[in-house]
Amino acid sequence: MKNPLRVGLVGLGTVGCSVVSIIQTQTDLLRKICDHPIEILAVSARDRTRHRHADVSPYTWHDDPLALARDPRIDVVVEMVGGQNGIALDVCQAALAHGKSVVTANKAMMAHHGVALALQAETKGLSLCYEAAVAGGIPILKMLREGSSANTIESLYGILNGTCNYILTTMAKTGASFEDVLEEAKRLGYAEADPSFDIDGIDTAQKLALLSSMAYGVVPDVNNLYVEGIRGLSAADVAAAEDIGYVIKLIAKARYHRGILHQAVYPALIPNHIPLAHVDDVFNGVLFKGDFVGEIMVTGRGAGGDPTASAIMADLIDLANHRHVYPFKVSVRDLIQAKPESMDTYTCRYYVRFMLRDVAGAVSHVARILADHDVSIRSLKQPEAEYHQGIVPLILTTHECQESVIQKTLSEIRALDILCDDPKLLRVEPF
Amino acid sequence: MKNPLRVGLVGLGTVGCSVVSIIQTQTDLLRKICDHPIEILAVSARDRTRHRHADVSPYTWHDDPLALARDPRIDVVVEMVGGQNGIALDVCQAALAHGKSVVTANKAMMAHHGVALALQAETKGLSLCYEAAVAGGIPILKMLREGSSANTIESLYGILNGTCNYILTTMAKTGASFEDVLEEAKRLGYAEADPSFDIDGIDTAQKLALLSSMAYGVVPDVNNLYVEGIRGLSAADVAAAEDIGYVIKLIAKARYHRGILHQAVYPALIPNHIPLAHVDDVFNGVLFKGDFVGEIMVTGRGAGGDPTASAIMADLIDLANHRHVYPFKVSVRDLIQAKPESMDTYTCRYYVRFMLRDVAGAVSHVARILADHDVSIRSLKQPEAEYHQGIVPLILTTHECQESVIQKTLSEIRALDILCDDPKLLRVEPF
Repeated sequence: MKNPLRVGLVGLGTVGCSVVSIIQTQTDLLRKICDHPIEILAVSARDRTRHRHADVSPYTWHDDPLALARDPRIDVVVEMVGGQNGIALDVCQAALAHGKSVVTANKAMMAHHGVALALQAETKGLSLCYEAAVAGGIPILKMLREGSSANTIESLYGILNGTCNYILTTMAKTGASFEDVLEEAKRLGYAEADPSFDIDGIDTAQKLALLSSMAYGVVPDVNNLYVEGIRGLSAADVAAAEDIGYVIKLIAKARYHRGILHQAVYPALIPNHIPLAHVDDVFNGVLFKGDFVGEIMVTGRGAGGDPTASAIMADLIDLANHRHVYPFKVSVRDLIQAKPESMDTYTCRYYVRFMLRDVAGAVSHVARILADHDVSIRSLKQPEAEYHQGIVPLILTTHECQESVIQKTLSEIRALDILCDDPKLLRVEPF
Repeated sequence: MKNPLRVGLVGLGTVGCSVVSIIQTQTDLLRKICDHPIEILAVSARDRTRHRHADVSPYTWHDDPLALARDPRIDVVVEMVGGQNGIALDVCQAALAHGKSVVTANKAMMAHHGVALALQAETKGLSLCYEAAVAGGIPILKMLREGSSANTIESLYGILNGTCNYILTTMAKTGASFEDVLEEAKRLGYAEADPSFDIDGIDTAQKLALLSSMAYGVVPDVNNLYVEGIRGLSAADVAAAEDIGYVIKLIAKARYHRGILHQAVYPALIPNHIPLAHVDDVFNGVLFKGDFVGEIMVTGRGAGGDPTASAIMADLIDLANHRHVYPFKVSVRDLIQAKPESMDTYTCRYYVRFMLRDVAGAVSHVARILADHDVSIRSLKQPEAEYHQGIVPLILTTHECQESVIQKTLSEIRALDILCDDPKLLRVEPF
């Protein structure tokens, strides 16, 4: 029997306990597939007395996670605390400084400090793995980094946030309002008490920055990335999209070409005949296109203790077999610092919902200003049934035009005294 | 610069030329991701003078592929000849015997001789990789072997043959007959002149045996596997399935439980609301369920030079980075010899189309024999419009019953003088 890979776990919430449970129960399988047996040596969490689903009594307990990170008996530290800075970052830095590889599920930390950590790891010949940080149990980092490694990636789309996807799917199924579904999601444990991180698209943006890096070999850049969440979407938008053959999904997208990186997160109308439109509920999905392999799409559970632990274990099993990879597919010294593309020059079709005051000439005003800017209308609807207290929705889609043009057009329309509410602008994603 | 990984290519058809093209064109990417540069040293194919899309003039030409397999300068032999035995097998055996790792796209050889080859490779500490043998460009072997490696797989479904999937999708879209669509597929290059290997399910069965092995750690067993192809499916079956909310797909499925392996390939009705139902045209798809990760589904191009070459390159890049894996996820000495489960005890819902002679009492006879065997009818239709020259279709679905019971029931019905044609039996797959 070879030397074990001695593991220290920091953070013993749902994910941490699932990791313990896999190591304790899948013994026969792990014995067969690990060159070096995986052995938990020590654990650390905030509260030692808390009731847990997994029995951690066999392991050394460290009150101080940094003491675990420095424990000379440990080979790999698994960080499952979360958060962009603070303890998580301290633990990972300390572990690498003390010659230990790191496995983490922390997208915020990796999106913001990943390059610095990777540099620290590479310099010392250590591993830094974070399969669990993006799309939960889906091995998407491995697919991009190894499975389709010979390809130049041409485009990448993701549905990366289970909370948002649950909300949007439920709105589409039930016709309920955003607010009502969000409350239900909180009750079901699919949304946090403060859901802003999810519904404002920040979580998705962090995951996208990591995916872009893995797909295109660029420095992850979460700061120069257009982010728009799903707040303010109404049941009317969801229904109107369905009416014209689309579903609304919070999409992450990235495209790289000759030094320019286009990355964006926003709710978009996507045609309901493409498979990405059927990634529903809390599921995640990623669609990417390589120059040789063509399109590959993968779906699975993007969150939850067990799926996330499955991804952490995949990293640990790779380490236990000496399967070494660069954290960002290429060495950090080969990462490209891409120039972010401004949203202004983005071109697509648009969906706009105006809530018009029911005054003579309102539609004519809107149509004229669109025409003035050469924004051509593709479809238009003012539903008879939805007239309500002198307010009437006008829903239209445009032909392709530039983002800066449609934004300028809407500003002019806003300036008129014919709207009861801010117009809702959504992008119709070309597939 | 480290020593190159020196590669010899055997077979220079579409796939071989795509491999050459990737190595010649993706130089910047390969330089960044390969610890040892991948270098083609020698090639071998049947006809040296044939016009090829790739320039192989820089490489040593071997008329005899076995001479290439023995060439002492070569580290890895890539076998792209195909075929269960013959040259392909000779080349792989010779390469391993001479201390070279093997990368192959050959499902037939791997399904039948994979264990022997893996034993030869393991004994010498060599690699035997065959990502390209299953589902073309989809890195499904890597996903099962590494990405979800900590999971006990609970079930596995695949749509693994692009020819059959193209035929079935086109029949569903156009209403055309099997024969007409097959002819069209031949014209388009999606079907071979002799299509039996594809349409009789043999190709799918070989891929399934390899997937089962990777998923469940069992000896690949293509000989004890129920195989039924798509010959004899009629436009009427496709339309009737659609009518009740299903699509017909040639599915491969495998389930392992306590030493018993259920593996089967057959055309099945699958509910059109599940994602597998939307794997269309020449695409492949695999859906598997792990005890921790839950369901993961992946789709992509299952054939073609470029996607297949993408998978071969993934294997080569792993080798160029010393990322070693067992050919069948676990060592051949740990593979389980599973007991195949007979189809007789399989239980599911069934679809049956009878072509009845239009005589009084025909339906009553059918219904009585079904009742005699406790086969309960779930839905029943004798379409008014399809009466034709004294023949009328009777299409029904049953509640769950055992395969042996429905087969016995059909035998008794066949014995009556009320059928104009053999009844068409299809399984309604439970999801």
